[in-house]
Amino acid sequence: MRVYFTFEPRPNLCKPLVEEFPEVEFIFEQGVRDDVLRETDILVTYGEDLTDDKIAVAEKLQWIFVASAGVEKMPAQAIAERGIYVSNVRGIHKKPMTESILAHILSLKRGLPSIYAQQARGEWNKKVRLTELNGSTALILGPGAIGQEIGRILQAFEVHTIGINSSGAMTNYMNETYPIAQLLQHLPKADIVIAMLPSTPNTKNLIGREHFEAMKESAIFMNFGRGDLVDENVLVQALQENLIAHAVLDVYAEEPLPANNPIWQLKNVTVSPHLSSHSSRYVERSLAIFKPSLRKWLDGERQLENEMNLLRGY
Amino acid sequence: MRVYFTFEPRPNLCKPLVEEFPEVEFIFEQGVRDDVLRETDILVTYGEDLTDDKIAVAEKLQWIFVASAGVEKMPAQAIAERGIYVSNVRGIHKKPMTESILAHILSLKRGLPSIYAQQARGEWNKKVRLTELNGSTALILGPGAIGQEIGRILQAFEVHTIGINSSGAMTNYMNETYPIAQLLQHLPKADIVIAMLPSTPNTKNLIGREHFEAMKESAIFMNFGRGDLVDENVLVQALQENLIAHAVLDVYAEEPLPANNPIWQLKNVTVSPHLSSHSSRYVERSLAIFKPSLRKWLDGERQLENEMNLLRGY
Repeated sequence: MRVYFTFEPRPNLCKPLVEEFPEVEFIFEQGVRDDVLRETDILVTYGEDLTDDKIAVAEKLQWIFVASAGVEKMPAQAIAERGIYVSNVRGIHKKPMTESILAHILSLKRGLPSIYAQQARGEWNKKVRLTELNGSTALILGPGAIGQEIGRILQAFEVHTIGINSSGAMTNYMNETYPIAQLLQHLPKADIVIAMLPSTPNTKNLIGREHFEAMKESAIFMNFGRGDLVDENVLVQALQENLIAHAVLDVYAEEPLPANNPIWQLKNVTVSPHLSSHSSRYVERSLAIFKPSLRKWLDGERQLENEMNLLRGY
Repeated sequence: MRVYFTFEPRPNLCKPLVEEFPEVEFIFEQGVRDDVLRETDILVTYGEDLTDDKIAVAEKLQWIFVASAGVEKMPAQAIAERGIYVSNVRGIHKKPMTESILAHILSLKRGLPSIYAQQARGEWNKKVRLTELNGSTALILGPGAIGQEIGRILQAFEVHTIGINSSGAMTNYMNETYPIAQLLQHLPKADIVIAMLPSTPNTKNLIGREHFEAMKESAIFMNFGRGDLVDENVLVQALQENLIAHAVLDVYAEEPLPANNPIWQLKNVTVSPHLSSHSSRYVERSLAIFKPSLRKWLDGERQLENEMNLLRGY
């Protein structure tokens, strides 16, 4: 049984894995080599290094463990046709991403961009406009595992939470939940709109100009799901016209964000380079999910944690 | 009955007050005029505009409502000798200050200073070292009303909280509480040390070099109480020698922080210009505390919310 990691965890993380599974041949190596892949049973990857050709080479491959949540770059059709089992690290992003989102919200409310800028200039100035998070209303578009964790923390800050999902079914840590068809009518209530949606045919360009027009002029719009949720021309125009107060973006139509993209020039936007789920504890956490799954797999179980349907997209 | 505000709330805040108390003569005016003061029964002040002479002029003064928490600049002896009742807006700072403290912690953990700096340079760089707040330990020095609110929110982020107070008596939202005499032995456990102490003879220079030596090299030290808690030479040296990772300061020995103070030059410090309790909702909240107190006072009650002992300092 060969397990092929196409990235190299730190030695202090590899060693216990190798020791715990003496019956397994582990290969830890950056990149995807065909000769190694040909004899590989289980592949552990960040999901960005596979193609139809690689899947064809991997004749013995039965299970792909994706140490990431985004799977847009995986050859879904080829993997599905072969019946290769896929699982991922869904949930691993929950805490770091929630902390990033709260960091951005609180930073804007409590004037950190101004405080940092003044410090860089050696300037002492107490006249910074500071507002408060408590008592405000947040609308979470896509209250899944991460969105609910955001809701939990926001409620601790005494924020009223509105969840928008496909069915409108009640969701944990949301004070109210509505179906996506009612999005437009609930947007005017929100001080903060947090988009956490995956990229699917249904979510592409879901947010249009009418949605920004429906938001408060003081609203903060945060996109931490996928860049194609909103046409960037529409977004840029909404920000230029101050239809809303600020946008915090972690995802973009094209990444890296091209140097000539007008988003770079906007004053009322925070450009986060798609890193809000990153964490120094990421690989450690991925392995903590992988290990029990590998044990089950070796025991013949074929129902693992975080099973994925690649064709569905999540 | 004359009530003299030595600052001017917005008209939409003054008007309901005047209407609610037709029996009271209100004067709202920036500064402290002796002729007005002479006939004043109740003074509403930020606490920075009084002197022994002013107290002597205010012959009829019976109650000072301080719309602030710091009272170091008030002529405590003169006020106490006259038996003037003092109350303040203790607790009003709780939420904005907690939000500022969480903003700073999360900003450091989730790389916001780097993200902002990269954006300013038009640079896309995902290689920012991001860590997480959850799972860490915070030591709160002075877990009073604000410290407990910080503890409540930190616990929502799954942080283990250690409170240090004078008696060691258990405190809300602290997983453990110890007396100040044991501070040194508990500092090594903390990833974040948050000082919220008022300035009293007992707290002056309470933190010395041995305390920074006892902290983790990765520790964040935050002083949001009073600047004289630590000798600034000791603090600067600790930061220059990287005894700890970072300091976030909102208070200083001398304010404004002088241009030649070496703190401005340190890379591992955040200089916040003593504004972390500020809020656009501040005056509104002060009046929400003042109104019921004024009603009680007019009814002859002499036990008001947030009674202060100026000689004790809080």
